[in-house]
Amino acid sequence: MLRASMLLILALPAFAAAPVLPATLPDGPAYSDDGQLKFPENYRQWIFLSAGVDMSYNPGAQTAAHPVFDNVFVNPSAWRAFQETGTWPDKTMLVLENRGGESGHSINVRGTTQSADVVGLEVHVKDANGPQHGWGFFSFDNPRFAKLTPRTASCYSCHEAHAAVDTTFVQFYPTLYGLAERKGTLSAGYRKDVSTRAED
Amino acid sequence: MLRASMLLILALPAFAAAPVLPATLPDGPAYSDDGQLKFPENYRQWIFLSAGVDMSYNPGAQTAAHPVFDNVFVNPSAWRAFQETGTWPDKTMLVLENRGGESGHSINVRGTTQSADVVGLEVHVKDANGPQHGWGFFSFDNPRFAKLTPRTASCYSCHEAHAAVDTTFVQFYPTLYGLAERKGTLSAGYRKDVSTRAED
Repeated sequence: MLRASMLLILALPAFAAAPVLPATLPDGPAYSDDGQLKFPENYRQWIFLSAGVDMSYNPGAQTAAHPVFDNVFVNPSAWRAFQETGTWPDKTMLVLENRGGESGHSINVRGTTQSADVVGLEVHVKDANGPQHGWGFFSFDNPRFAKLTPRTASCYSCHEAHAAVDTTFVQFYPTLYGLAERKGTLSAGYRKDVSTRAED
Repeated sequence: MLRASMLLILALPAFAAAPVLPATLPDGPAYSDDGQLKFPENYRQWIFLSAGVDMSYNPGAQTAAHPVFDNVFVNPSAWRAFQETGTWPDKTMLVLENRGGESGHSINVRGTTQSADVVGLEVHVKDANGPQHGWGFFSFDNPRFAKLTPRTASCYSCHEAHAAVDTTFVQFYPTLYGLAERKGTLSAGYRKDVSTRAED
């Protein structure tokens, strides 16, 4: 489990060295010599796409014992390209950060707020020259490096079949979906899903 | 009700004119001649602080008929100052964006995701030279200008009594709270709340 305090310690020195936000600096993926993805230290300064709570794509999934938030961030250079094209350039990094949901924190008397602890962190990276040769998932269990998730994992086939734009779930990013629709970049799989649901 | 499409239309021309993100540009408040706050067009490119769902500070509040998300963003110049000091500088702008919560959107079979529609937008601004002379709330019902919320509104007294740092609810911002604690900037009111709860 990643602790927020670990992330903060990692992020601060990198920030202190940079007079401007990473938005104007290279913000793409970096790898170790053995092809592991380097932890994206400044991702909380990237562009926020959305947050969901207790999401699941599996109809058979049990309700989680504790609420979990999904926060999604994208590197600013990829976000800027998406504004122009409605799809993702090479070197896109989407960070999925999970935090626990808390009830009754401080003066909040109902509903759910986010925990200090990061309980999961996965990065979806598009890199033609990376070890994944295209899109790949990297799931971090420490704030340093993560191995590529094997291509046989179900996340790949699900994203390829159902994601709205270029294997990414833009249908859950409210400021990007309409843009993709107007640019005509919605995937065939996603459009098929929509028409199938309309017929039900 | 603000529509996400309205926000996008406003944000794009401003972005197209700027070769870098507003992180490195002036990002403080601007006002009309009659003291209304100008809508912060690029706030979705600012620093995300957290998202909650169905929050309420009122023990007597009814459960909402529909889920509502709270997304909070801060202007990058204020965020940078907070990293150094643990509190907010003059010209801080905190944007509270409300979006509806949706069930069963696309392939999501449980939990809640965020709507395209923005259903509320309020900005908490610290500006010694603004019409509020300090901290003030501005609630937008259109994406152009908003009047200052009168000082008699309960949001002022509640924030002054219970907010963790400088009348802002840093206790709900997981990447900032620990920093404020280490810098010794937690408010007397907040520390009293914590000790009172510990005695209960």
